[in-house]
Amino acid sequence: MNTVIPKEIIDNYFKEIEIDNLNRASIRQVGAAVANAEKITGKEFIHFEMGVPGIAPSAVGVKAQKEALDRGVAAKYPNIEGIPELKEEASRFVKAFINTDIAPKHCIPTCGAMQGTFAAFLLCSQLDPKKDTILYIDPGFPVQKMQAQVMGVKTESFDVFEYRAEKLGPKLESYFSKGNICCVVFSNPNNPSWMCLNSDEIRTIGELATKYDVIILEDLAYMTMDFRREGLGVPFQAPYQLSVSHYTDNYVMMISASKIFSYAGERIAVACISDKLFDRSYETMRQRYGISKFGAVYAYDMLYSMSSGVTHSVQCAMAAMLKAASDGVYSFREDIREYARRTERIKKALLENGFHIVYDKDLDEPVSDGFFFTFGYNKPDGTPMEGGELLRQLLYFGISGIVLSSTGSVLQGIRGCSSNIREDQFEVFEERLRLFNQANS
Amino acid sequence: MNTVIPKEIIDNYFKEIEIDNLNRASIRQVGAAVANAEKITGKEFIHFEMGVPGIAPSAVGVKAQKEALDRGVAAKYPNIEGIPELKEEASRFVKAFINTDIAPKHCIPTCGAMQGTFAAFLLCSQLDPKKDTILYIDPGFPVQKMQAQVMGVKTESFDVFEYRAEKLGPKLESYFSKGNICCVVFSNPNNPSWMCLNSDEIRTIGELATKYDVIILEDLAYMTMDFRREGLGVPFQAPYQLSVSHYTDNYVMMISASKIFSYAGERIAVACISDKLFDRSYETMRQRYGISKFGAVYAYDMLYSMSSGVTHSVQCAMAAMLKAASDGVYSFREDIREYARRTERIKKALLENGFHIVYDKDLDEPVSDGFFFTFGYNKPDGTPMEGGELLRQLLYFGISGIVLSSTGSVLQGIRGCSSNIREDQFEVFEERLRLFNQANS
Repeated sequence: MNTVIPKEIIDNYFKEIEIDNLNRASIRQVGAAVANAEKITGKEFIHFEMGVPGIAPSAVGVKAQKEALDRGVAAKYPNIEGIPELKEEASRFVKAFINTDIAPKHCIPTCGAMQGTFAAFLLCSQLDPKKDTILYIDPGFPVQKMQAQVMGVKTESFDVFEYRAEKLGPKLESYFSKGNICCVVFSNPNNPSWMCLNSDEIRTIGELATKYDVIILEDLAYMTMDFRREGLGVPFQAPYQLSVSHYTDNYVMMISASKIFSYAGERIAVACISDKLFDRSYETMRQRYGISKFGAVYAYDMLYSMSSGVTHSVQCAMAAMLKAASDGVYSFREDIREYARRTERIKKALLENGFHIVYDKDLDEPVSDGFFFTFGYNKPDGTPMEGGELLRQLLYFGISGIVLSSTGSVLQGIRGCSSNIREDQFEVFEERLRLFNQANS
Repeated sequence: MNTVIPKEIIDNYFKEIEIDNLNRASIRQVGAAVANAEKITGKEFIHFEMGVPGIAPSAVGVKAQKEALDRGVAAKYPNIEGIPELKEEASRFVKAFINTDIAPKHCIPTCGAMQGTFAAFLLCSQLDPKKDTILYIDPGFPVQKMQAQVMGVKTESFDVFEYRAEKLGPKLESYFSKGNICCVVFSNPNNPSWMCLNSDEIRTIGELATKYDVIILEDLAYMTMDFRREGLGVPFQAPYQLSVSHYTDNYVMMISASKIFSYAGERIAVACISDKLFDRSYETMRQRYGISKFGAVYAYDMLYSMSSGVTHSVQCAMAAMLKAASDGVYSFREDIREYARRTERIKKALLENGFHIVYDKDLDEPVSDGFFFTFGYNKPDGTPMEGGELLRQLLYFGISGIVLSSTGSVLQGIRGCSSNIREDQFEVFEERLRLFNQANS
């Protein structure tokens, strides 16, 4: 078989690190295998594995951050609850783009949504001794499951692909009715599938959260990136980002600067806690921490003990980016629309070379083009190539990604991220797909 | 009694927040009471309560951070293990000022030492099911105990004041020999007492750590700030910072930028893990995380899941500050010596007005002047005023602090921090001490 990268280079590397099944390889291990192959062969891979911004950071943020440094904020511990202007602007941003009212006091910065969910998982798991389990609506971000493992909290999960529309409610209730679920995490659009639950489905999640007193952690890492819906991302104007906050008071929304503002390096997000949940008192918390309110424990026990707050100059950057977006002078969605353009071209090339899109539809509508996409390949007998095997084959042809199984998916395929493909790489990419298809069909 | 602040203003505030005993008030609650009194009376307090830098942030750091932002690092996720130049410079800094050899690979940035200890506590508590308890050498930083409470790990502690010199070994062994201690945390100089364990005592800690296989977390937040020891803080030249790393391989040193570089706002420290400990394999870790080495789990499971690494631009700042210090072009110790000058004047005023220094000696030598100091007051009958009562009385006279009991101390008194007193406040301070003494003697 004619491959782009000698097979032994890939195979030997994985043998060396004791990985024989690529379903068990972490992103980092795949990345290391790719780096090793690039070094030996001098051939650059098409890097679909990493979900990192591929455009410049928000200029508004960089400018504000530098000005803050000039003011000497580096010496001053940041307020744990967040600097006032950030809290104000986060509240305003939520109103502008989600049309949800949250008081500034209840918008709290975190060191990325990663810290935001870590702190929320830990807090939710301590509120009620009977509710000791996190439910993941999969496919999802693998590290969120690792978080539960790190803190020793139990988990349950299901692949929502098989439970869309009217099937979602009964599926959720089958978990909630057992009484052990403290919180649910989901993302819209979803990493990796880029599916978007529709408003009926999100309403179902919200209503059941209220009924069973479960907290919903809504990860809005990719908010407004459903590029099928024109008009999203215009401040104070419908349509708005779909959100569970429209249907329940039991929620925490995580709004991260990483993707929407291309600010991943600086580690900031805002946890927007519903007004009611923020002020809700828990006797368990009073006994454990001497304070009882959800929001206060979140800030003063969780976030305080995890990092003493969020980098001061970055809070200033975030405040400025949120403000510029709400003011309508920073059209962040137009910047990140570039990912959709790249994904459209990538998908076209995949389809022309024998591949298919794995998570191809939201109910009866094709999924949006965006940051992530999923793809699979059918063997000559018409059955899908197993995900781990597919990744190995792709690596032979200089294309990387992550296996869908690592995201809790029950389907066979690969998650790709379009963010880092360059204009000059499309031709190489298409040629590699052609060679792959030739070798495997 | 003639007070500076009407007593009712203080008393009513604490009544309102249901605190009748000031031993139970957090720093934050004291701060809120003070802010309330300042607002009502228009009189500024002497703010001894907050341990925050009172000088400008390192100019070297600010410059490097702004340059990094100009290079666009804000868009790029930072390497979880730290950017290469930071790792190199951390290793070199440790050699320059502590005279300990640690490979760059084993120096990993954290979002402040707060995240560094959180991650280390959690990891240490998971290594061996029998070793489920953290031992604190008190008095210490209260939030480090809150961290254990947040993660649900057991704790033990003792006030080292009563176990100095040859008493320290037997005391430690009385804990270690039970077999349940996973790690020990201590700081030198110590927050709040500013005591410094001497090299014999630190050797004892190190040797027993090796004997009983316990990990020592050495919090070097105030490194080189024992201002009695001239010549500290000169790169690659004795004397060096005392450190447990000279006596055992079972250690993690936390080097924070917050105080030594006045960079508290930006949340960065470096966890320097001993070469041997970093590479040590634990079967428990392999089972739980699929990887077995202490250092790898620390970075890729703990830190990754807690914040996806440390703010990228701040890593660049830290690398530059460490480098400038090791190059000998940034004499950071001379900048922070200002705290010792302030503390010397404060202590003099205290002693002239009937107060005494609580933790006054390291064995037979007076403790150094530095960032924190401790003080108490004897009642007319010659017995010490109880700490909570003393704080309340001080608040009546416009002076704040925190009660020593909150730090695990068995002695009666107050922790003060000299960092934020201004030149123009000394006269006011002395007058208030005089009034306090008049009213209470």
